[in-house]
Amino acid sequence: MKNFISVKDIPSLQYALDVAFDVKENPFAYQHLGKNKTMVLIFFNSSLRTRLSTQKAAMNMGMNTMVLNVNEDGWQLESDLGVVMDGDKPEHLLEAIPVIGQYCDVIGVRSFARFQNKEDDYSEKIISQFVEYAGVPVVSMEGATRHPLQSYADLVTIEEFKQKERPKVVLTWAPHPRALPQAVANSFVEWMRETDYELVVTHPEGYELAPDFIGNVKVEYNQKKAFEEADFIYAKNWASYSSYGQILSKDLSWTVNEEKMALTNNAKFMHCLPVRRNVVVTDGVIDSKNSIVVPQAANREVTAQAVLKMILEEL
Amino acid sequence: MKNFISVKDIPSLQYALDVAFDVKENPFAYQHLGKNKTMVLIFFNSSLRTRLSTQKAAMNMGMNTMVLNVNEDGWQLESDLGVVMDGDKPEHLLEAIPVIGQYCDVIGVRSFARFQNKEDDYSEKIISQFVEYAGVPVVSMEGATRHPLQSYADLVTIEEFKQKERPKVVLTWAPHPRALPQAVANSFVEWMRETDYELVVTHPEGYELAPDFIGNVKVEYNQKKAFEEADFIYAKNWASYSSYGQILSKDLSWTVNEEKMALTNNAKFMHCLPVRRNVVVTDGVIDSKNSIVVPQAANREVTAQAVLKMILEEL
Amino acid sequence: MKNFISVKDIPSLQYALDVAFDVKENPFAYQHLGKNKTMVLIFFNSSLRTRLSTQKAAMNMGMNTMVLNVNEDGWQLESDLGVVMDGDKPEHLLEAIPVIGQYCDVIGVRSFARFQNKEDDYSEKIISQFVEYAGVPVVSMEGATRHPLQSYADLVTIEEFKQKERPKVVLTWAPHPRALPQAVANSFVEWMRETDYELVVTHPEGYELAPDFIGNVKVEYNQKKAFEEADFIYAKNWASYSSYGQILSKDLSWTVNEEKMALTNNAKFMHCLPVRRNVVVTDGVIDSKNSIVVPQAANREVTAQAVLKMILEEL
Repeated sequence: MKNFISVKDIPSLQYALDVAFDVKENPFAYQHLGKNKTMVLIFFNSSLRTRLSTQKAAMNMGMNTMVLNVNEDGWQLESDLGVVMDGDKPEHLLEAIPVIGQYCDVIGVRSFARFQNKEDDYSEKIISQFVEYAGVPVVSMEGATRHPLQSYADLVTIEEFKQKERPKVVLTWAPHPRALPQAVANSFVEWMRETDYELVVTHPEGYELAPDFIGNVKVEYNQKKAFEEADFIYAKNWASYSSYGQILSKDLSWTVNEEKMALTNNAKFMHCLPVRRNVVVTDGVIDSKNSIVVPQAANREVTAQAVLKMILEEL
Repeated sequence: MKNFISVKDIPSLQYALDVAFDVKENPFAYQHLGKNKTMVLIFFNSSLRTRLSTQKAAMNMGMNTMVLNVNEDGWQLESDLGVVMDGDKPEHLLEAIPVIGQYCDVIGVRSFARFQNKEDDYSEKIISQFVEYAGVPVVSMEGATRHPLQSYADLVTIEEFKQKERPKVVLTWAPHPRALPQAVANSFVEWMRETDYELVVTHPEGYELAPDFIGNVKVEYNQKKAFEEADFIYAKNWASYSSYGQILSKDLSWTVNEEKMALTNNAKFMHCLPVRRNVVVTDGVIDSKNSIVVPQAANREVTAQAVLKMILEEL
Repeated sequence: MKNFISVKDIPSLQYALDVAFDVKENPFAYQHLGKNKTMVLIFFNSSLRTRLSTQKAAMNMGMNTMVLNVNEDGWQLESDLGVVMDGDKPEHLLEAIPVIGQYCDVIGVRSFARFQNKEDDYSEKIISQFVEYAGVPVVSMEGATRHPLQSYADLVTIEEFKQKERPKVVLTWAPHPRALPQAVANSFVEWMRETDYELVVTHPEGYELAPDFIGNVKVEYNQKKAFEEADFIYAKNWASYSSYGQILSKDLSWTVNEEKMALTNNAKFMHCLPVRRNVVVTDGVIDSKNSIVVPQAANREVTAQAVLKMILEEL
């Protein structure tokens, strides 16, 4: 594997699962692959889980790590071409990226949707430049449109907790005070579409995901109906795609609560975290024994390590 | 040792001293204990000595380290229960803590008194939640009411520099432009009470430490009288406990100066640092040969390593 | 080598080149020298290349590293002597430096010119205190007046790309929206003066470098004339030394462009980065095949490692 940007980068879903379960079992067995190799983790946006889990994964592999918080440790980077750079930004990605690539063997990069320009976001303007200019493999630690390390961990978690071969998995929109990117939802759907699970997406009207991501997945606008017989409830807020970046609803009747969970097939509750308690989900649900958000987060380390193993094996 | 929050967590003072002197002599002898083990250091408040000394101690033990500056690298964390999280804080400690615990083997956490609510501070609201939810050992890198790594280093330093079996140790309040927590003073008294040293605390009226900490230790309101025949002068500012978090005095007549040091038994001068020169202590005293603030700070690495050794041995 | 502050600290230019080319060839061959050794990197000013390249160099040597961003991770440090510290700065360099020195084996420090006081800057007030009080070797990661790791990398780069024994090297001032320190220019001249290259410096009137640095190096005020037959064009902005810290010109006729590069002997284009495109240099020049800014930046890791090797060998 050269880069890890979307589900299309893995050889196959089954192979990815095999590697993940192997590194979970044997986290320190592959340090020869990472010896004297360095990963730089670049954050255009702040991070807790992604930073710690990816850094831990790299250390499990025997790698050295360096973390760079752009706009904090470093500086503002220009990303537009042909600009006369006499403003705030002292450096262009065209220099910064290949230079960083000289100091490491793998780059991880996080760059969220900015909601200023749908075209910029959906072309993955920042991550695409990293892939083009880094000269070393690039791992998305969440781009503008996808969060593949999260979705890969979601898949591993469902595989670990599923009680039947083909579980019903429901992605439900939930309210939130801020406008959040579609990356987690897009990416979750993209990965689930590669499985043979029964996938249902539920959200208020106006929150339809981008056509390329949702494809022909079933959308059910009645949340309660969607929950019926579900084995997994995956809650997530996202801002509107059609009214790009807008909050169309903060309707708390979409909060995942005990009453709705009672409609399911004793479903497990999932969320990528961080989660707004009593807005996205009630204390009762997230504190219940069916909540698997912590083991789900723990699998972020596992899949980050699996990705690094697949990359290091081909260096 | 499971957690390190107060002097009560160590098996015995003598054992703690033995371990400290051993790791000081042999800093790299125990790396097998830390191999493939990771410590996450979480700072709700900024740090220089504590961060560097604890990280260095962990590396001496062969551990990997990851540093998280909450409110900077990460984000604001909610700590109240039952809140509808529609405000500034996107994540609750109830998720953040166990998730961080999944990515490491030991957590170090620094969370100062906020002086907003005495009950919150003196119940160690933040560190207590870490102990309860982390799932891995927790080391206090200074809580709201105690700074045990500092006090342990203070003890080691006094043992190294004492000229008699039972030295007279004086903790003196000193003026400061800001309202500082009582943690260092509380914790110093708590540790000294476990020794057979002669301990005297001196401060202006209104600066009495919390009853649980001061116990029946001698308080002398006349600073000069307290200094007589002292072998160690430990200076520190703290805000009032009774008038909680208030500055009652900035009286520079409490500054530790050469004239007062002349009253002592050629006492060593100690301070946890950072120190305000010519406010807490004069240049003349801190620059004198009797000032041991640098070796005292150096012992922060030693005791942090001793704590990690005791914890790792029981993992 | 004890400290690395200027070209005067290296045994000889030839030895420095030999060490650099050796560690470039064998980056992981000297990890026994760095085992259980720690480098603290202290940044009073932000950094991308310097931080990553120096940290990488230290890791290549098998060292542990800790990064401290003063004014961010830590706190404001007082540097004046005799001050009554009742203001913003809670700690003095007189304590901070020796304490940091207790937790590591080598200190790297970056502290730019502040342009408030020429005397403070040109006496290297901050770095000089580190050298005096650290108790361990100090590596300048850019001081107020010099950037020796950069100049050393510049030298290595010229040696790698030169087509003749004694190339003509031109340092040209270029416009910039901000007032930048003279450190890179000073230091470049200082190192080039140790070679037998033909060195020419070109800049508008009023931008003369400090006499100690420029010495008797040829200054040519006609930029185009300076470029004639040049083998290397090194572009850099700096603020005025005589009108200390002032911007006297933003004249875009000094921008390095294709027309001027055509006057040279097919010269390579160099810049220390970060660079303002279409202000300091046109896209056409920096994107041309003659631009060697990326390999030049890559050599920052090489020379930082060479410096650490020379220091560690004498610890």
